[in-house]
Amino acid sequence: MPNLKIPEHQVAGHQAKNGVLGPLIDDTGKFYKPLQNDERGSNELAFYTSLNSDSRIPSKILNFFPSFHGTQILDASDGSGLHPHLVMEDIVSNFTNPSVVDIKIGSRTWHPQSSEDYIHKCLKKDRESSTIKLGFRISGLRSLGSNNQLWQPHKKLLMDLNSEETMLILRKFVSSDGDSDEPDCVFASRVYVSVLEDLLELKKWFEVQTIYHFYSCSVLVVYDKLNEEKNARAVVKLVDFAHVVDAKGAIDHNFLGGLCSLIKFVKDVLDGVCGDGKCVSKMKCSTVSENLNPLS
Amino acid sequence: MPNLKIPEHQVAGHQAKNGVLGPLIDDTGKFYKPLQNDERGSNELAFYTSLNSDSRIPSKILNFFPSFHGTQILDASDGSGLHPHLVMEDIVSNFTNPSVVDIKIGSRTWHPQSSEDYIHKCLKKDRESSTIKLGFRISGLRSLGSNNQLWQPHKKLLMDLNSEETMLILRKFVSSDGDSDEPDCVFASRVYVSVLEDLLELKKWFEVQTIYHFYSCSVLVVYDKLNEEKNARAVVKLVDFAHVVDAKGAIDHNFLGGLCSLIKFVKDVLDGVCGDGKCVSKMKCSTVSENLNPLS
Repeated sequence: MPNLKIPEHQVAGHQAKNGVLGPLIDDTGKFYKPLQNDERGSNELAFYTSLNSDSRIPSKILNFFPSFHGTQILDASDGSGLHPHLVMEDIVSNFTNPSVVDIKIGSRTWHPQSSEDYIHKCLKKDRESSTIKLGFRISGLRSLGSNNQLWQPHKKLLMDLNSEETMLILRKFVSSDGDSDEPDCVFASRVYVSVLEDLLELKKWFEVQTIYHFYSCSVLVVYDKLNEEKNARAVVKLVDFAHVVDAKGAIDHNFLGGLCSLIKFVKDVLDGVCGDGKCVSKMKCSTVSENLNPLS
Repeated sequence: MPNLKIPEHQVAGHQAKNGVLGPLIDDTGKFYKPLQNDERGSNELAFYTSLNSDSRIPSKILNFFPSFHGTQILDASDGSGLHPHLVMEDIVSNFTNPSVVDIKIGSRTWHPQSSEDYIHKCLKKDRESSTIKLGFRISGLRSLGSNNQLWQPHKKLLMDLNSEETMLILRKFVSSDGDSDEPDCVFASRVYVSVLEDLLELKKWFEVQTIYHFYSCSVLVVYDKLNEEKNARAVVKLVDFAHVVDAKGAIDHNFLGGLCSLIKFVKDVLDGVCGDGKCVSKMKCSTVSENLNPLS
């Protein structure tokens, strides 16, 4: 049995603490996600199996998915005994000081075949969050500052951001001190140039692929502020496939629209930094900060 | 007063017949749309006014909107007396034998500020039609065959098309006899090459514009089967702006996603025709036709 522990850098989803069933990691770079009992579990397993056996998926695109290592029965994190887990790549395991953001893509998180109860629940959350307005929502964020300070805004604060607040959060994410009202954006170029490249690659695929529709799926961005050399390039991965369905002949217009919206934000952050990567819209940032702070 | 009549080629929206309030046309190429009494009327008027005074709209993009000539008070088509009308370009007036399709873009036809009643009504229709599945729905279609035969499928038949049926309808729209189960696609290249060009131009704009969000807005495609010379190029216009709202800093991911989905269908029709523009998937077409016909 591998030496399992609770992941420290997880920013969204069910978390294995206080007796809750959640994912575990080992020290060899593997991530163990408990198979959900309902159809979500079997659906995610079916997706990974299909993805890795479908010759229509270009290898460049396959790289955006965590590599998959089947299932394994393990002691569940909630102490409830043996439970089947999906075994996949632990995306942050290559980073010593990972800064992570989880962005749930799409202006709709439910698909037409969902139950009425589920649709109602999702639609409510989509309307209360930035999902309907922006085409995505930031589900979680954790940033380890250059001063080794942790900035991890509360999920409730991230849920319902307008576009100015979203810009500010995306700027803070690439600043030396995330918690500062005047983000310096010193990591903007290093992180977002490559992130943009990856998102544009994904966009090209989503413009033509009629294999899957991804509901409630996230783009995860990970980089390391402290270790420029080793992990200069930010990592972009898609995660969470419990709600992937057959495309039935149409492109995933819902995911693609949200992805294009995120791309525009990333471009705008890059446009707002000067040649040496520093933020040139400090004035604007601090005004929005004042509006955000009462909630934090 | 201009010599007004009921437009013959209108395929979607309120129609001025049987005592209903609807649009009128004159013989100088103008289209008179009754200003709706509620906020939809003032909203559409405000949109046209804003569009034509906003220097951020490139002139290439302005060309995709009907030209606007203000408002005019006219005798209403329902005989209720004087009523204010929006005066705009009659898009089909340059065509002797127009074939027209109206495609409502977006997988959501309501915006977050709408009333609960309106959202409920739209969501129901979006779910019952192809809107949620494909990111658009064909709201109306009228095709004047080379044999001068009219093909105008019932709106109910068009509402809930799956992707194969949508492909078939888009093929039939560019065939000499729309009603045939084996569409010959003889007009596919002439029509869809230029339509594709226009849709891609629109797509480029929608990837960056953060001025408007267009809900319940349609792409109208018009061409003439009988008059190749005069109107060889199909006309692509956006219509219906009663539900345009401020973009609030984000791109219109909902319209863009649906537009990209339509683009993929148009590309697929073009990919399915051989060098001389003829349909090469006749077998497939007639199978889908069998499924469609019981409804027609």
